[in-house]
Amino acid sequence: MRARARGQLRSVAVVGLGLIGASLCRALRARRPELRLVGVTRRTETAERALADGVCDAAGTGAGLLAEADLVVICTPVDAMEAWLVACRDHAANAQVTDCGSTKAWVTGRGTALLGEQRFLGGHPMAGRELSGYAAADAGLFAGAVWVFTPASGAVPDGFIPWQRAVENIGCRIEVMDATAHDDAVGWISHLPFGLSSAMVRAAAAAPSWPAAQRLAASGFRDVARLAGGDPAMYSAIIGSNAGPMLAALDGLERQLGELRRLLESGDGTAAEDWFASARAARQRWLDERAAAGGLPP
Amino acid sequence: MRARARGQLRSVAVVGLGLIGASLCRALRARRPELRLVGVTRRTETAERALADGVCDAAGTGAGLLAEADLVVICTPVDAMEAWLVACRDHAANAQVTDCGSTKAWVTGRGTALLGEQRFLGGHPMAGRELSGYAAADAGLFAGAVWVFTPASGAVPDGFIPWQRAVENIGCRIEVMDATAHDDAVGWISHLPFGLSSAMVRAAAAAPSWPAAQRLAASGFRDVARLAGGDPAMYSAIIGSNAGPMLAALDGLERQLGELRRLLESGDGTAAEDWFASARAARQRWLDERAAAGGLPP
Repeated sequence: MRARARGQLRSVAVVGLGLIGASLCRALRARRPELRLVGVTRRTETAERALADGVCDAAGTGAGLLAEADLVVICTPVDAMEAWLVACRDHAANAQVTDCGSTKAWVTGRGTALLGEQRFLGGHPMAGRELSGYAAADAGLFAGAVWVFTPASGAVPDGFIPWQRAVENIGCRIEVMDATAHDDAVGWISHLPFGLSSAMVRAAAAAPSWPAAQRLAASGFRDVARLAGGDPAMYSAIIGSNAGPMLAALDGLERQLGELRRLLESGDGTAAEDWFASARAARQRWLDERAAAGGLPP
Repeated sequence: MRARARGQLRSVAVVGLGLIGASLCRALRARRPELRLVGVTRRTETAERALADGVCDAAGTGAGLLAEADLVVICTPVDAMEAWLVACRDHAANAQVTDCGSTKAWVTGRGTALLGEQRFLGGHPMAGRELSGYAAADAGLFAGAVWVFTPASGAVPDGFIPWQRAVENIGCRIEVMDATAHDDAVGWISHLPFGLSSAMVRAAAAAPSWPAAQRLAASGFRDVARLAGGDPAMYSAIIGSNAGPMLAALDGLERQLGELRRLLESGDGTAAEDWFASARAARQRWLDERAAAGGLPP
């Protein structure tokens, strides 16, 4: 407790050594080499690889490892988090606890109920790849990313200031927002794009012309199809915990697709050009605003 | 006529010095420096820039320039092509004529009607960027791309063999297919992704949570949003000439989005995981087949 009281972080336990957890260990190792890193994973083989690679100082499969940590970061799929919150309550009595899950309202509620507002803080780094797992980890994954925190009371407790500093050390810009506002937002900018990408790939691959079309498909199709390469189990769990906001986003998308259909049916080229131009302008405003705020990650 | 009879190409006129036309000139200059390149463009300023940059040997705004060419490549937006087909008939009596338009059935019909099958061959390089115009041109744009030809009779006339060699010289793999089959295919893999990308950006930007969401949007949103940055006038013309195939693609997409909606409403995580897994598998099969055929452009 003395170390935390002085605002220091000596030992961080990362639960889940998939893409996010292992990238986090690599990023902290590179930028905060004084931190002791403890990896907790489902598979002995992954723990052994993390130790052999020097990604963690200690690693294994047991919740007992959590007792060493000043801070626990839960990086499992969202449907496995509840059990780890309970494990933190039982095995990490003095640690702060946070997470990297993609939906925040339910985990903020559960974490706060189990551990209290001073000990649990929901978090979400806005970074990812279509690849998953330990082997896809990248120390640079978080550079330039926004890291969202969703404190239950609206303000980040002082005990998490050392963790916020670590997050900034690995290149992130911090946003603090309400968990429900976060979940509405990611319904639009993460979960809808992933659903769309998957729907497009499924539709195209089922089309009679797909055998020819797949030979012609180029960078445009590839970009929109990229998210469909994401981990189905991870996305199924994310979407299961954020169905409401994602359905609202789907409603909004379908209204736009209805407008596109009417433009195609009417053959009104001027109206079509205006419709596309406003999409281009909205995208450009977004890119300009993000550039002014420090830019998007590469 | 003697030069063409020997299978040589000495002089190529490129009509339209936007992204595609100017990239084509740069690519030919780099790989086929012996070719005389003639640029024809709407704006005197662009012609002057192309001459100053050494992108063309001659450039200007008049159709009279076409008389110099062994081969004319029409690289204008698709709704401006008809007038240039007429100009080729009137000013380039001995030249072969081809194009780079994104829809092929109508231009193959019109080009063949005006010039005959031996003199007109529809073409479409499957390459692009979200940027447009002369300034966005890139000599490497076509490296690794598929270049589709759509001969009216099914076979490429011998007179176009020198042009096919030039297309291979700049790094393309040639596909010959029926114009209608091409248009069905690009409805799925070009026009649907562009429409989707624009619809997603419009829907997200109109959402109440957009002011917060736009600060969080990261690489997933950016990738799906990229195509919405394309030239509205170009896309409006493409879509106006390919409404039928694009509507069929939209039908297929909306069926998939209906399935996604039902998965979200039912909360059936196993079914959702299967649905996403089959999208991932279809994407991976596509990437594997393309890798086996030489890969996608970067």
